[in-house]
Amino acid sequence: MITVQEAAKLVSGEISGEAGVKITGLASPYHSGPGCLTFAVVPEQLEAAKNGPASCVMTNMDVSAGYPKPVIKVRDIKLSLTVIYNTFLKIMPQPKGEIHPRAIISGTAKIGANSGIGANAVIGERADIGKDVSIGNNTVIGDDVRIGEGTRIYDNVTVYYGSVIGRNTIIHSGAVIGADGFGFITRPDGIYKVPQMGVAVIGDNVEIGANSCVDRGTFDNTVVGDNVKLDNLVQIAHNVKMGKNVFVAAQSGIAGSSTVGDNVMMGGQSGVSDHVKIGNNVQIGAKSAVIKHNVKDGSVLWGYPARDVKLFLKETAFLILLAKKKREIMKLIKGVTGSDGGDEKDDASGGGS
Amino acid sequence: MITVQEAAKLVSGEISGEAGVKITGLASPYHSGPGCLTFAVVPEQLEAAKNGPASCVMTNMDVSAGYPKPVIKVRDIKLSLTVIYNTFLKIMPQPKGEIHPRAIISGTAKIGANSGIGANAVIGERADIGKDVSIGNNTVIGDDVRIGEGTRIYDNVTVYYGSVIGRNTIIHSGAVIGADGFGFITRPDGIYKVPQMGVAVIGDNVEIGANSCVDRGTFDNTVVGDNVKLDNLVQIAHNVKMGKNVFVAAQSGIAGSSTVGDNVMMGGQSGVSDHVKIGNNVQIGAKSAVIKHNVKDGSVLWGYPARDVKLFLKETAFLILLAKKKREIMKLIKGVTGSDGGDEKDDASGGGS
Amino acid sequence: MITVQEAAKLVSGEISGEAGVKITGLASPYHSGPGCLTFAVVPEQLEAAKNGPASCVMTNMDVSAGYPKPVIKVRDIKLSLTVIYNTFLKIMPQPKGEIHPRAIISGTAKIGANSGIGANAVIGERADIGKDVSIGNNTVIGDDVRIGEGTRIYDNVTVYYGSVIGRNTIIHSGAVIGADGFGFITRPDGIYKVPQMGVAVIGDNVEIGANSCVDRGTFDNTVVGDNVKLDNLVQIAHNVKMGKNVFVAAQSGIAGSSTVGDNVMMGGQSGVSDHVKIGNNVQIGAKSAVIKHNVKDGSVLWGYPARDVKLFLKETAFLILLAKKKREIMKLIKGVTGSDGGDEKDDASGGGS
Repeated sequence: MITVQEAAKLVSGEISGEAGVKITGLASPYHSGPGCLTFAVVPEQLEAAKNGPASCVMTNMDVSAGYPKPVIKVRDIKLSLTVIYNTFLKIMPQPKGEIHPRAIISGTAKIGANSGIGANAVIGERADIGKDVSIGNNTVIGDDVRIGEGTRIYDNVTVYYGSVIGRNTIIHSGAVIGADGFGFITRPDGIYKVPQMGVAVIGDNVEIGANSCVDRGTFDNTVVGDNVKLDNLVQIAHNVKMGKNVFVAAQSGIAGSSTVGDNVMMGGQSGVSDHVKIGNNVQIGAKSAVIKHNVKDGSVLWGYPARDVKLFLKETAFLILLAKKKREIMKLIKGVTGSDGGDEKDDASGGGS
Repeated sequence: MITVQEAAKLVSGEISGEAGVKITGLASPYHSGPGCLTFAVVPEQLEAAKNGPASCVMTNMDVSAGYPKPVIKVRDIKLSLTVIYNTFLKIMPQPKGEIHPRAIISGTAKIGANSGIGANAVIGERADIGKDVSIGNNTVIGDDVRIGEGTRIYDNVTVYYGSVIGRNTIIHSGAVIGADGFGFITRPDGIYKVPQMGVAVIGDNVEIGANSCVDRGTFDNTVVGDNVKLDNLVQIAHNVKMGKNVFVAAQSGIAGSSTVGDNVMMGGQSGVSDHVKIGNNVQIGAKSAVIKHNVKDGSVLWGYPARDVKLFLKETAFLILLAKKKREIMKLIKGVTGSDGGDEKDDASGGGS
Repeated sequence: MITVQEAAKLVSGEISGEAGVKITGLASPYHSGPGCLTFAVVPEQLEAAKNGPASCVMTNMDVSAGYPKPVIKVRDIKLSLTVIYNTFLKIMPQPKGEIHPRAIISGTAKIGANSGIGANAVIGERADIGKDVSIGNNTVIGDDVRIGEGTRIYDNVTVYYGSVIGRNTIIHSGAVIGADGFGFITRPDGIYKVPQMGVAVIGDNVEIGANSCVDRGTFDNTVVGDNVKLDNLVQIAHNVKMGKNVFVAAQSGIAGSSTVGDNVMMGGQSGVSDHVKIGNNVQIGAKSAVIKHNVKDGSVLWGYPARDVKLFLKETAFLILLAKKKREIMKLIKGVTGSDGGDEKDDASGGGS
């Protein structure tokens, strides 16, 4: 619990109204309760905050003199709320730290102090769940899974047997951790499934978005390092090793056995082929496809296949220019060949097959 | 309930058999019940319809004289069944309008008349569910969620706290509505999560495909307008605002804070970057990546990066042609430089890094 | 159950230690039990195997003389374990073949001998589940679904009404089978949903990855042939017909009504447009987009749009080369036009709209 004064000081904000009011949580102007610090970035939110039960409003707007609640005015509301959120408070609704009577928990599972388990959640044999963990409704935690303290797993998540999840990690709904990797051996007499016997290991302070997948390893493990942030619908294949502080935007994928260094950023819908080694501090543009087997530290790649961003932009722009100069270029070519370029049929739908 | 005659009139169909038979539902020839109108587009369906309990068959084929059931012959079976479906009937199986004894409903939730809640569904505190709503098995509806009348949410869906869903909307299994947007602030001392305090607002007559995601907003809301149709595995990021009548084919994504006008169509696996403004009546080709910040009304874009479709096709075709003329072009270049073009190494896997 | 000697013979392995020891299962060195054959590909796994309860270790490393358990040394551990797995043993943990007291099974459903149903699983009316089937926790099986013997469906899967699933098939968590296809008819007065009345039919020995989707058909069925292997987050749209032995890597999609022959391979994030006909033995590169309506047997395609791989690589490399020769080419063009090429503005973000 902090006071309006303490909150304002933390973000160099300017208080109007009573500075001694106590704040116990953070919430939107439409869903706040007593004790909440709320915010307003548009006038209607200021109005909602006024009429609701919140105890204090943070805003980047001017507020009229008669406003009936304490106001903290800040310049950068996103940064300010992020500071407040990460320093003192958590967003509501908070998990309740209770075990729902309709949770199904194996007798051999260990549940840490103050951890909450949702309705219809299923906790497998020998699962070891730390303290202050929150497991959502209808989530399934497999046998032998370990989950570190302070981790929050939302509703309808599936964590396969043996997975290891760190501390203060967040996993959103629909995510699947530790499903079988995609491995088969084709022989003349049939297709054989390669047993996937490693596990998925997720670090501390990781966030995994809705409906994302991290597969288990084949013999070794799949590893997602500390502070990795995966957006929604991301695919991390078997045996991938990711370093720390990696950001992967939505619908991107990393194929089997590739390694990714620290501080890497992947744009949306981008992909990394299998058995690729990506260095540290690499940036991969949206929708790019990295197929090079070795990407040096600090590279900035774009394109399909991905290459240096400056080259990619130069090449793309040059192709646009060349197409504009088609007549002149064809004339030049004709000068060389003496032909009339008769096979210059437009066929963008793909020849040769 | 309608008669065979009324149904036939609606679609300008030709009846053979008894026109007064009553129709109460619509079903496939393999899963129909008494009272059902079924269909046949291949002979085996005609046979299945004959042997099953359906009361009437709609078909575009000729049916032999002795066929033992009323038949409505139409020219366009897809259009005809769509008309019947949207005018009078609904597809089976219908939800039962019952609350399963194993649903878990907060005491503070409101459930409208004739609404059904599936087994193990979890309905949060203060949730406000309209009449004639159907909530599937194992679906989780968070605290403070509002759902308009006639909406159907299938099994294993997750709707996060505070989300607002309109009327007559359909949400398929595995979809996740209102999970946290992907927002972080990186500082020298660490990565901080930006609290995601807005909600997801879904309009009327929307359809959201299986395993699709619509994130909640940061401070403002994420908005999906009326009549928007999202296919499977689609990603709608935080703070996106979508107009009406937008179609988004499977595996496409719209990144954070972008706006999309009315009557926009996005092909499969296409993407829109963050903070992009797409006008009305825009068409975006499959697998295209829109990175321009402003797309005018009526644009038709293709490519990576997306550009006018005619230019894209022209450029793609011209590159194919240029590659065919490589020898001549290299000769021309050699004429300018006097060199032998020695650095013309093929390197499609991406240079410069 | 087999002996160490029998296992070693199967994979041409070299035994050290007691050859008569009995093996009853296959497990990782970290999660094994008595009777298990485990493996070691790194020294720490050899150590874990030594200290754990496993009865035998397969490895490709040299093992010191005093190692206290029987060891089978092989050259190719992946192949060897695949052979063992597919011949004799299954990976642990095995489903228990029990019906959880908290499963919800319709009175009209049929469950075959030795089949297990997880906690909170919901089995619909007239569902027909074969013997030796395993249904995971919180999985929903709709009305009239048929599932063949030996099939394993993991947790949190949704199978819509009427779907047909073959024998010895595996479906991973979060997958959605038989949701409505994406079909609408737009008229001046509104957008109408086309009823999706076919079903999804999945063959024998299929594997479907986590969070993948196979939609139901419109009037006809969607068909996934025997031995098809779908990775995670794959989309198979309505009315698609897939042959046998098709591999589809993660995040790929096949649009409505396309047909795919036998022995086709699709790389990650690739796509096939609607109403496309792909022959047998076709290979489609990662992130490629097939828009041609007819792809011949044996084609190898890459690119966007997808074309013959050799042409794609040649064209991509040639564009890179041309961009390097920009100065020379512009000089040549200037020679033809007499202009200074003044419109050669770099604009890679897409013109024309």
